[in-house]
Amino acid sequence: MLDWENIFATRSTRMRASEIRELLKLLEQPDIISFAGGIPDPALFPAEDFKTAYADIMTGPQVGSALQYSVSEGYLPLREWLCGEMAKIGVACGTENIFIVSGSQQGLDYLGKLFLSPDDTALVTWPTYLGALQAFNAYEPNYDQLTPNGNRTPESYRDNAASKGGRVKFAYLSADFANPTGETVDRAGREKVLALAEDLDIAVIEDAAYQSLRYDGEPVPPILSLEIAEKGGIENTRTIYCGSFSKTLAPGLRVGWIVANSAVIRKLVLMKQAADLHSSTINQIAIAHVATGGFDRQVAKIRAAYSARRNAMLQALDRYMPEGTNWTRPEGGMFIWITLPEGTDGAELLAKAIATEKVAFVPGKAFYADGSGANHIRLSFSCADEATIDEGIKRLGRLIAGEVRAAA
Amino acid sequence: MLDWENIFATRSTRMRASEIRELLKLLEQPDIISFAGGIPDPALFPAEDFKTAYADIMTGPQVGSALQYSVSEGYLPLREWLCGEMAKIGVACGTENIFIVSGSQQGLDYLGKLFLSPDDTALVTWPTYLGALQAFNAYEPNYDQLTPNGNRTPESYRDNAASKGGRVKFAYLSADFANPTGETVDRAGREKVLALAEDLDIAVIEDAAYQSLRYDGEPVPPILSLEIAEKGGIENTRTIYCGSFSKTLAPGLRVGWIVANSAVIRKLVLMKQAADLHSSTINQIAIAHVATGGFDRQVAKIRAAYSARRNAMLQALDRYMPEGTNWTRPEGGMFIWITLPEGTDGAELLAKAIATEKVAFVPGKAFYADGSGANHIRLSFSCADEATIDEGIKRLGRLIAGEVRAAA
Repeated sequence: MLDWENIFATRSTRMRASEIRELLKLLEQPDIISFAGGIPDPALFPAEDFKTAYADIMTGPQVGSALQYSVSEGYLPLREWLCGEMAKIGVACGTENIFIVSGSQQGLDYLGKLFLSPDDTALVTWPTYLGALQAFNAYEPNYDQLTPNGNRTPESYRDNAASKGGRVKFAYLSADFANPTGETVDRAGREKVLALAEDLDIAVIEDAAYQSLRYDGEPVPPILSLEIAEKGGIENTRTIYCGSFSKTLAPGLRVGWIVANSAVIRKLVLMKQAADLHSSTINQIAIAHVATGGFDRQVAKIRAAYSARRNAMLQALDRYMPEGTNWTRPEGGMFIWITLPEGTDGAELLAKAIATEKVAFVPGKAFYADGSGANHIRLSFSCADEATIDEGIKRLGRLIAGEVRAAA
Repeated sequence: MLDWENIFATRSTRMRASEIRELLKLLEQPDIISFAGGIPDPALFPAEDFKTAYADIMTGPQVGSALQYSVSEGYLPLREWLCGEMAKIGVACGTENIFIVSGSQQGLDYLGKLFLSPDDTALVTWPTYLGALQAFNAYEPNYDQLTPNGNRTPESYRDNAASKGGRVKFAYLSADFANPTGETVDRAGREKVLALAEDLDIAVIEDAAYQSLRYDGEPVPPILSLEIAEKGGIENTRTIYCGSFSKTLAPGLRVGWIVANSAVIRKLVLMKQAADLHSSTINQIAIAHVATGGFDRQVAKIRAAYSARRNAMLQALDRYMPEGTNWTRPEGGMFIWITLPEGTDGAELLAKAIATEKVAFVPGKAFYADGSGANHIRLSFSCADEATIDEGIKRLGRLIAGEVRAAA
């Protein structure tokens, strides 16, 4: 019999089961209160709008082309609509700067593929989006720590990368309500990231998956818009912006987008042509229908719902969490990041939480490229109502308080 | 300004514009008769069935989950239906052996990613499917020539691969009505490929994109079914089968599948989770609706239509082609492969054909990993009616006859 490990590519050793995904399989028991998911609430999907969109497509003259192959760049009317949306947030661009992907996760995979040769270095925050680490891992990079408001010198990054046999290729960050922390990088931090990228002559990958989900506070301009303002136009920029419809409209269609310099877009289009030809034609048309019909209304609806849930979770944390536990106070997104008393292990806590308190979350370690972060946990407030949030945080606070007492 | 070429990964140098895709852009002039495409005829799509499927999904209790994230393995009822279909062609397997991809093109990309480290060798036929070369190129392999009924020794493959710094990882072939030749590998040829793979201890990738489109002659068992019969079960096999709904139902939904040993499937699922999470949930459900509702009826419909077009093209070729020109006589699929008189260049012929005779096809060279094959062209009969086929081949025959006379 063939020993498959013998003929798999070297990159395959870095493809391992995701703790989160494996975990989600355990959470199908209905009596568990789960703050683990981090997925949108299906009750908020614009299902009626999608119903109308698919019905219109299937009864209109477009039906043949909706079911047919289409161009790798993506559906032109959707890219045109996106140009208008990007202009509203300070990103003036043309359709040649917009590329449709099968969810922004695919965008991250393609950007890893475009930039990373084995032993190159990617800069990521500690912690960062787990899915970004998984996507990049396939291209066998090293990681170094991006600190948007820190003081690491460009030389230190260059030297680290060279000592590992490659060079720094990009800095990846989610600047708004990041997964997993919920935190936002302020304008000064964004400008420092741009300055660092300029010095290292690398790209910046701006993951904007949660950017539309601001509940209060002042919007910070996207990194790409700051760079366009500074450099006079998108063709002079090094920032690559990854957008997603998964949190605003629906993830099941797998439609996201990338905005960048046209030199990068052209290369990504060639890559997609070779990798999967194009994203689903009919789904791109359906997204265009629903987005043009009422994107702002839909975003207002989910903001109101998630904002109330965030408030409920922050109130419950204030009420039930013991001394020595800290957490972020996000202005948007889906996540709150808890720092447990030093020495507490989030994974061990989860096992106890499921067994004794029937409450679930994601342990923090998976979000760290260096495997640290064991005393953090991620809570998502997107899929539970306010009463359930209160009850779940009460249970979690009780468990953590018991742990703190036992350790004392 | 950033010099992007400086920071792109080495693999990016192998991502170049596809001649076929660039060509297709020129073919939008309505007075050209095109045999270039190789795409299914949209008039044959089961549009009514898809209309019902999307309407049922969007009005049923499943709507929330159809718009939501879903598992990387693929939609279970679709995988169950595929188990039944695979059993009919001699491939007994369970759902753990079936993995849904975003079109079989994505399957090829993932298999390249799973097996190929830079400088490894992939065995492909000369010519082969251009899209397979493009998908594999991203992983920087070398190619060696697979000759299903030839007599190359395993040692010659091993030595060639070693001399290039890697090892042979798989043999890729489309055994039924291949793109671009339309030819089918007979049972003896399939068994020889399996024996070679056994000797080299490599995988076999069986691209079955056209397998359902047989118009006459006796079906040859799939390579995977021959191996299962020999080895007693799918868990003992080395063949990876790639299936597609693009030619039978519709390509615009981007749904295909892979059948293999569960060790391979598990690794592919991890890869997909990192690369794009999962294929479109709603489209997988729609495909399952349409397939369970009447797959065989739909296949019978397209077989009848394409078979008549193939007959028309073969008759026209007999009638209009000059001496010294040869062609394949496919028992199925979408393509006929023309061998022009020695010294004729297919690309030059295309330029003349578009300019003077307003007829188009694909020059053969792009399908050869070694850049040979200039005196071949590929004709597709899938998208033209019989009268148009007759007229187009008449024009093409006239042009080639003129070329032959000019060369004499």
